[in-house]
Amino acid sequence: MNHITLPSDFALTTGPFPGSRKHYLTTTSGLQVPFREVTLDPSAREEPVRLYDTSGPYSDPSARICIEEGLSRPRDAWVLARGDVEAYDGRPVQPQDNGNVGPAHAVPEFPLQRRPLRARDGKAVTQLAYARAGIITPEMEYVAVRENLGLAKARETLSRDGVPFEADIPDEITPEWVRAEVAAGRAIIPANINHGELEPMAIGRNFLVKINANIGNSAVTSGVAEEVEKMVWSIRWGADTVMDLSTGRNIHHIREWIMRNSPVPIGTVPLYQALEKVDGIAENLSWEVYRDTLIEQCEQGVDYFTIHAGLLLSHIPLTANRVTGIVSRGGSIMAKWCLAHHRENFLYTRFPEICEILRAYDVAVSLGDGLRPGSIADANDAAQFAELETLGELTKIAWQHDVQVMIEGPGHVPMHKIKANVALQQKLCGDAPFYTLGPLVTDIAPGYDHITSAIGASMIGWFGTAMLCYVTPKEHLGLPDREDVRQGVVTYKIAAHAADLAKGHPAARLRDDALSRARFSFRWHDQFNLSLDPEKALEFHDETLPKDAHKEA
Amino acid sequence: MNHITLPSDFALTTGPFPGSRKHYLTTTSGLQVPFREVTLDPSAREEPVRLYDTSGPYSDPSARICIEEGLSRPRDAWVLARGDVEAYDGRPVQPQDNGNVGPAHAVPEFPLQRRPLRARDGKAVTQLAYARAGIITPEMEYVAVRENLGLAKARETLSRDGVPFEADIPDEITPEWVRAEVAAGRAIIPANINHGELEPMAIGRNFLVKINANIGNSAVTSGVAEEVEKMVWSIRWGADTVMDLSTGRNIHHIREWIMRNSPVPIGTVPLYQALEKVDGIAENLSWEVYRDTLIEQCEQGVDYFTIHAGLLLSHIPLTANRVTGIVSRGGSIMAKWCLAHHRENFLYTRFPEICEILRAYDVAVSLGDGLRPGSIADANDAAQFAELETLGELTKIAWQHDVQVMIEGPGHVPMHKIKANVALQQKLCGDAPFYTLGPLVTDIAPGYDHITSAIGASMIGWFGTAMLCYVTPKEHLGLPDREDVRQGVVTYKIAAHAADLAKGHPAARLRDDALSRARFSFRWHDQFNLSLDPEKALEFHDETLPKDAHKEA
Repeated sequence: MNHITLPSDFALTTGPFPGSRKHYLTTTSGLQVPFREVTLDPSAREEPVRLYDTSGPYSDPSARICIEEGLSRPRDAWVLARGDVEAYDGRPVQPQDNGNVGPAHAVPEFPLQRRPLRARDGKAVTQLAYARAGIITPEMEYVAVRENLGLAKARETLSRDGVPFEADIPDEITPEWVRAEVAAGRAIIPANINHGELEPMAIGRNFLVKINANIGNSAVTSGVAEEVEKMVWSIRWGADTVMDLSTGRNIHHIREWIMRNSPVPIGTVPLYQALEKVDGIAENLSWEVYRDTLIEQCEQGVDYFTIHAGLLLSHIPLTANRVTGIVSRGGSIMAKWCLAHHRENFLYTRFPEICEILRAYDVAVSLGDGLRPGSIADANDAAQFAELETLGELTKIAWQHDVQVMIEGPGHVPMHKIKANVALQQKLCGDAPFYTLGPLVTDIAPGYDHITSAIGASMIGWFGTAMLCYVTPKEHLGLPDREDVRQGVVTYKIAAHAADLAKGHPAARLRDDALSRARFSFRWHDQFNLSLDPEKALEFHDETLPKDAHKEA
Repeated sequence: MNHITLPSDFALTTGPFPGSRKHYLTTTSGLQVPFREVTLDPSAREEPVRLYDTSGPYSDPSARICIEEGLSRPRDAWVLARGDVEAYDGRPVQPQDNGNVGPAHAVPEFPLQRRPLRARDGKAVTQLAYARAGIITPEMEYVAVRENLGLAKARETLSRDGVPFEADIPDEITPEWVRAEVAAGRAIIPANINHGELEPMAIGRNFLVKINANIGNSAVTSGVAEEVEKMVWSIRWGADTVMDLSTGRNIHHIREWIMRNSPVPIGTVPLYQALEKVDGIAENLSWEVYRDTLIEQCEQGVDYFTIHAGLLLSHIPLTANRVTGIVSRGGSIMAKWCLAHHRENFLYTRFPEICEILRAYDVAVSLGDGLRPGSIADANDAAQFAELETLGELTKIAWQHDVQVMIEGPGHVPMHKIKANVALQQKLCGDAPFYTLGPLVTDIAPGYDHITSAIGASMIGWFGTAMLCYVTPKEHLGLPDREDVRQGVVTYKIAAHAADLAKGHPAARLRDDALSRARFSFRWHDQFNLSLDPEKALEFHDETLPKDAHKEA
């Protein structure tokens, strides 16, 4: 890492969690699927507890980590073996891709260059296309083993217990079952063919509830190592996907460093980079700039794009009497463009063309909710639901093009209006996975919006939302630091897990029960090691009580 | 304060919140009811926002605070005016009341002594008795003005919006309506006749959802000033009642200091002090020691007692196969006593006598849930619901004695099992107010249990729980410090407010809307001042963004 400037206090966070070890299961076709295993005190006479593991090789002491080389790329072989892709000379990197940054502020380029892959002869190389064709891909097999975690054990020891609403989680996750869920559009496996470093995962209401963490550079911090560390830190605490919402300079290069070091799917909002390319002037956006940005990011391996294609010119007047107007950044940009040109949103009119591009790389589309409510007062209003109806239309178009799709949702919603969001989304969007931000259940607690939103997130996850986008304590106020990211991710792991329990996921309770047994037997370290944040639990325990007196009390 | 030893870093927290002033409304009969008013930036052209205020005189810059004198006692006149009480020579303080503390460790006695009041000639001096007799007390009038907050304004500007379940919140809270709710047993006004410093408040599903904060001394900290400050600190952030769970030495004296300086109802678990009096040996507890402790605390002015009278000998075997057995401290103590003597719980057999005592001082009973589940695995089990059935019986006995009663609830419950708790409690306990601890919706996040429990608390509050007992981040791990108490209280204010919104409390949304308008207009300081924790919001805002650049962005 000799040509990366590291801040003096910087270190990549690696190594296992206390009491845990990395464990790999080998699938029938030889894939290595990672888990975390917590070993308990011998007095417990219990098997190690196997946990879902998002942290990638960073938590494996035997892995060699060099961010200049990136992670290894086992998936390249899977992609190439399908025989439907070709390497080509990618789009050259242009100065505007990095905000025309001068040499003084430029971050280094990722050292290794690869020719990108794309579909050959207009073929669909998406997991959806394979699933529909009856093909079980290695990605599906990997997901099945990963999600099957604990189900066999749960079958032996626990009876079914939960209120699943529309969810239907089987007693065993088979590769064929994963294929069927993807084929039906009820689940997606975001997995760009150019993201060879990926450990595949699924997003769907019949799988474990997932969470996303947002990262991104800012004017203040934009070092490459710091940005990679933000991603590593997020997945260490349990983020299933990471969205890179960087703006400003060095955006292309930083994304490349993140992609090459990320074992989780990376999502972006391509509109943000497109806007940078037209100097931040929304009116100057064009299909050509946007299209070029899509291809740039497809080639880098981004796994899903948020695209605000559902905000129509005719929806904008519906926001006139709102308390908080349009709060989605993407939504505001597109509303500005529509009003300036008095034309229909080009992301809507060009949506079939967008899908053609996405299917050549298998980038999933996350249909953005540009009109999501920004306050309790605006929840479930005409603007929000008009856009949702359009998202339903676009879902069908994406599916016609074999493109995987999920749907973004609110925002700010009081508890009694949450269920209606899920019901309408499922109805209008044909059961495509729902991906929500919170929702925050009150507006009165800036500084605590990880909590106001976790309440809504737990409930909407229970009702059937497949992925929850985290909110940190700094929401509405500033940019999150490391501690905020940790708070946000752990809080959302709570929400996702509470939802799994309430849905009656057959294996979810195994961890609660193991921890509760440890608590009841005063096996303090087992309790800490089984918790979502063992370091915090240990720190809090030692802070106020004498060390040994109470530990075996 | 010359003979109180103050730690060097100690200061009583006083003064108004930023942007706020204390405002008193005068009732028709001349009572002064406090509110907090937030003044907005003139550019908003909005009226000040009036908020419910639990903080007492401590937030009033014009109030003279001297903890050696205690707060003023306007309620004495109300109580005496009823002509049904008498002053008498109270029970003398005994060495065992303070854990036989020696002079070296004794805290000073509260300087002012008063003869306690009790009911004359066996009269019932409870708010319930008055309500049933058709009498509107000053306490009821006070509560009506206090709760009526914003309802008139809401009627003008907002349409009804919510899912109230069994709640039925009127458009205007009249004293007569408060009386009727108390008479029906659906609400209580905890108000010991010896707590003259009290600012009365109501707990009931048709009122604003309330929260309780627990405080208490420990081996490490037991200074008088610190204990008073814990109470002041809790109510500053919004605790509606405070439970003093002190154990060990100085317990009587510290409670006296707290009572004399508390504007909110104080609750206790008399069993804890009774146990101290028998040197911590549960088997040695007796009705005589317990009865003596009740009278001691009744005379001091404690407003409600948690009494674990519902745990029967026959329930104990139902816990045998639990993952976490009996986790309630009171429950464990009584189970131990029952098993040691193989006799029925004396709190159950003596319950009519207990009620006779309570009605002479108007102490409300909070029927403890000694068998509440301590883990997800044990939620809603036979032990828990058997005890709840007994609590239903005891509710009727309390009511026969004109004693106000509420019912304590769990604990640890996954989301899908929360509603059943409220439904069963309402059915078995004839709509007596429900008072729950959380519940925590998962066991896997020690260090974050304010959050796991706020998720459950929000939902159970929505479903009809009247008061939520806070949980701090240190739950299961250690004793909370000041920052933990703040986190716990603010988190529970979020839960209570989210519940009010979802129930469709007509005025709840006024604060959300005012804050959201401030947010949308970039009136940053209005946003901070309207938030539950203005200091945190300001601190987070300044931490990462340039000071002025973004404030008016």
